[in-house]
Amino acid sequence: MKAFHYTEIDAQPVEGVPGTNIRWAIGKNVGAPNFVTRVLEVQPGSASPYHTHPWEHEVFVLDGEGVVKTADGETPIGPRMCVYVAPDEEHQFANAGDEVLRFLCIIPFAPWSTEE
Amino acid sequence: MKAFHYTEIDAQPVEGVPGTNIRWAIGKNVGAPNFVTRVLEVQPGSASPYHTHPWEHEVFVLDGEGVVKTADGETPIGPRMCVYVAPDEEHQFANAGDEVLRFLCIIPFAPWSTEE
Repeated sequence: MKAFHYTEIDAQPVEGVPGTNIRWAIGKNVGAPNFVTRVLEVQPGSASPYHTHPWEHEVFVLDGEGVVKTADGETPIGPRMCVYVAPDEEHQFANAGDEVLRFLCIIPFAPWSTEE
Repeated sequence: MKAFHYTEIDAQPVEGVPGTNIRWAIGKNVGAPNFVTRVLEVQPGSASPYHTHPWEHEVFVLDGEGVVKTADGETPIGPRMCVYVAPDEEHQFANAGDEVLRFLCIIPFAPWSTEE
């Protein structure tokens, strides 16, 4: 068993996404075999690219206000909201407020996901 | 994409564990293929059984104060802490405070985990 505050994990910049950082909090660092729980912080005015990939996201919002953009439009998100993005679904997470948008984003391990 | 507040998912009692409920928040209900994000609420004085199973837990604490008991002893946990419990590792989550202990607990889907 491992227990630690999420801030004990180093925050890394996200390549190509100024104003956003990521912590690979619970994953290969602790020997997890199947998926990784990451903590994302998106500063006001920042957003992930509108993009797609063959793996899903399970997201739980901790702090801040944002919008999720998909092919169906924009959906507001805030604290304690759950978001599910399916494999191959286009999506973007954007900060829509004045404070940091902080959320957990869990993804599976797979051959296409060797990072960390 | 699906977005909803976690309280929109019904809280279910946990069989054999009075004072604890669970929401299967992001999983087969939204078509997720690999793992499920659950929200657990443990009332003051309540605890999960000291038990083991062949799948891991990735846990993120939202509210309250607790302890995780393993074969190595007891470890305090609180808000924004991460916990990793390995497959087949004995463990127990107990509320150690006066408020609800609320945490996310993510587990993989597998043949032995057909629930929900």
